[in-house]
Amino acid sequence: MRRILQAARQSFAHNGFAGTTLRAVAADAGVDPRLVGYYFGNKSALLDACLTPPPGYLEQVQRVVNGPLHTRGHAMVDNMLRYWEDPDTAPILRAIVLTAAHDPTAKQRLTAIFRHHMINAVADGLDDDQRHLRANLAAATIIGICMTRYIYQLEPLSNLSPQDVATLVGPTVQQYLTGQLPQTPYTPPNETTAAPRTT
Amino acid sequence: MRRILQAARQSFAHNGFAGTTLRAVAADAGVDPRLVGYYFGNKSALLDACLTPPPGYLEQVQRVVNGPLHTRGHAMVDNMLRYWEDPDTAPILRAIVLTAAHDPTAKQRLTAIFRHHMINAVADGLDDDQRHLRANLAAATIIGICMTRYIYQLEPLSNLSPQDVATLVGPTVQQYLTGQLPQTPYTPPNETTAAPRTT
Repeated sequence: MRRILQAARQSFAHNGFAGTTLRAVAADAGVDPRLVGYYFGNKSALLDACLTPPPGYLEQVQRVVNGPLHTRGHAMVDNMLRYWEDPDTAPILRAIVLTAAHDPTAKQRLTAIFRHHMINAVADGLDDDQRHLRANLAAATIIGICMTRYIYQLEPLSNLSPQDVATLVGPTVQQYLTGQLPQTPYTPPNETTAAPRTT
Repeated sequence: MRRILQAARQSFAHNGFAGTTLRAVAADAGVDPRLVGYYFGNKSALLDACLTPPPGYLEQVQRVVNGPLHTRGHAMVDNMLRYWEDPDTAPILRAIVLTAAHDPTAKQRLTAIFRHHMINAVADGLDDDQRHLRANLAAATIIGICMTRYIYQLEPLSNLSPQDVATLVGPTVQQYLTGQLPQTPYTPPNETTAAPRTT
């Protein structure tokens, strides 16, 4: 079952939902195709199983985002790096991030995780627009680091110790969570009109 | 030829190199498969054509990273957003970013663009390790914003005007380019030993 999930994650991330077949996943996993059907039923259910975060992951994110406000930026980066450094959990995160780039179901799921968990990292006292914007900016920072370090493997970022990365990037996340944001003529989404292009 | 490239970009980004066939690309583009062969020869050459940045893009990046040092962070974000906002160039960038996530050739090409162009954004006076690290951090920030805004379409970041995004994120890139970086026990890549895990 673990081998099936590994093969399926690889296939969904690289070939998308449409390009994945239960038969090919079974072949990659070296099992009888009927076994995939027996365990997972159909392709949607298999995708769903592949996109389930590692055990304890969401609870751990929750603990971190509920930690002390003034060190939360560093703690969030540090926690994310731990899961990406761990050979048991890294393939799961990789599959989620890559599959969500082209599959609508996976994207919805990733978005829900962001919305539900990141928003709690931001202080309650702010108004909702500010909270969502700050949570988005923090998420973008962390995603950028994960893409650059683990997917594109850009050096030297991919060669630094996780501790060094957290030291370098923690303050950026912290700034987005609790610092003064640059003043923009930002208006809530439903009032935003078509963005003018500057020339 | 334009329709073939559009179909091919879509396929490489979503199905990877292995999952793309000239025949399927031709079908998606609504042309005779022999026409794809005639124009592009083989699949590698087609991938190469798909990963070529939009006309003038690299020159424009070069101009921006050679602009005034103290406003370079904002200018870099602003420039990247322009290309992602433009319906002619956005699909090309999207194909590069997504294909590079799972295809080694595309990854090498993206890495070369980063290394060659981003490094020039950083002041000459710094030592090489500092320059590469700063360029990496700036690239990671911009990639994170593009993924969050254009690929995952996380709100409110995806709803803001490009100007607002540049106002919010420009200072972060600027800080990585010219600000004081947090002190880490960073050592050059070839002296880095296995990263210890904190417990």
